[in-house]
Amino acid sequence: MRTLYHWRLDPFSRQARVALAEKGMRARLVEEHVWDGRQDFLSLNPAGATPVLVLEPGQRRTSIVGARALLEYLEEIQPDPPFLPRGAPERAEARRMADWFDRKFDAEVNAYLLFEKVEKKITGGGPPDPAAIREGRVHLKRHLAYVSQLAEGRGWLAGDKMSIADIAGAAHLSCLDYLGEPDWDEVPPAREWYQKIKARPSFDSLLQDVLPGIAPARAYADVEI
Amino acid sequence: MRTLYHWRLDPFSRQARVALAEKGMRARLVEEHVWDGRQDFLSLNPAGATPVLVLEPGQRRTSIVGARALLEYLEEIQPDPPFLPRGAPERAEARRMADWFDRKFDAEVNAYLLFEKVEKKITGGGPPDPAAIREGRVHLKRHLAYVSQLAEGRGWLAGDKMSIADIAGAAHLSCLDYLGEPDWDEVPPAREWYQKIKARPSFDSLLQDVLPGIAPARAYADVEI
Repeated sequence: MRTLYHWRLDPFSRQARVALAEKGMRARLVEEHVWDGRQDFLSLNPAGATPVLVLEPGQRRTSIVGARALLEYLEEIQPDPPFLPRGAPERAEARRMADWFDRKFDAEVNAYLLFEKVEKKITGGGPPDPAAIREGRVHLKRHLAYVSQLAEGRGWLAGDKMSIADIAGAAHLSCLDYLGEPDWDEVPPAREWYQKIKARPSFDSLLQDVLPGIAPARAYADVEI
Repeated sequence: MRTLYHWRLDPFSRQARVALAEKGMRARLVEEHVWDGRQDFLSLNPAGATPVLVLEPGQRRTSIVGARALLEYLEEIQPDPPFLPRGAPERAEARRMADWFDRKFDAEVNAYLLFEKVEKKITGGGPPDPAAIREGRVHLKRHLAYVSQLAEGRGWLAGDKMSIADIAGAAHLSCLDYLGEPDWDEVPPAREWYQKIKARPSFDSLLQDVLPGIAPARAYADVEI
């Protein structure tokens, strides 16, 4: 069977888990603590980041590295249900949004809130910096307003069907939601969109994640909220 | 005709320029100074980043945003010459490397060297910080060794044919090469790989770029070095 190296509160790993489940493809989950710098893992991905999907023996290449490459790979080997719209410009829009979450949102929200509240705690990096948390929250508020605007106009983030944009977005936001950071009351269309994804069976295992020492926010696993 | 909003020393814009030229597709080039925060440009890309390709009138969607989405878009509408290998795992490998340059290399090299030596100068951000430049150089050296290792084993970065990995890599490295940063003597296979791309007609216009106030390194436009 395939093996997915992941970490439970890594937004990139979460994209891989949701995507595999959406495509109905099973994988053995192995949790990787990338901060340990394990040599065997670095030989799978020299960048030292999750997710990495190790394919079954007998394939010419043995592993698929990174959320962006992995979601495209799954779409190519298993087109149903589709992760991308049909038209080339529409597919570009879905890829734009996935990239936006992976680079813009990651740099301006995760690098503040996930870093301060989770990564520092786990790696012994000292206490959270309140100024950094405030700054991350300002960015989150602004980016959530943008997500809400897209969801309101389109139903899904890149059009009228679910796509890699939604998987990427929900995976990133779910990590913040674990920490109780998004103020969903301020952004009803974004809340409705997130509830829609959260209620999918592909999200089940994410909602059961618990991080030792950091309890999930009250509403994290509640699909009604 | 299509219009490409770009900035000459932006590694992402450069991917777009090389990719369009490789596919034999013309576009009007318009230089965008993203730091000005021009409203009309922000309405094309709220993330405020180049490149943005504005399509000819009459298309349903009017613009293609970001290097990753744009290169995939070009590959879909104009498959020849191919930017991706045939097999799904091999395509994943090309996408892994493109993503590696856009996120890892960008965060650990560009964010130090391009930021300190170019962005600060252009936006009036004060003098370069020597410690940051030293750190960026350490990262560049390590990453260049990795690029060299791949080039030596494979010929091209993601296999035996040119792909989006090479376009992304050469675009990023060309900005550093403008500043004379890579020590190519240390990495002969990487140099050979970069020379091979630099000599392609698709790279011509990049080699003619000059940044007001920052002269290119001596060997920047020399396809023999």
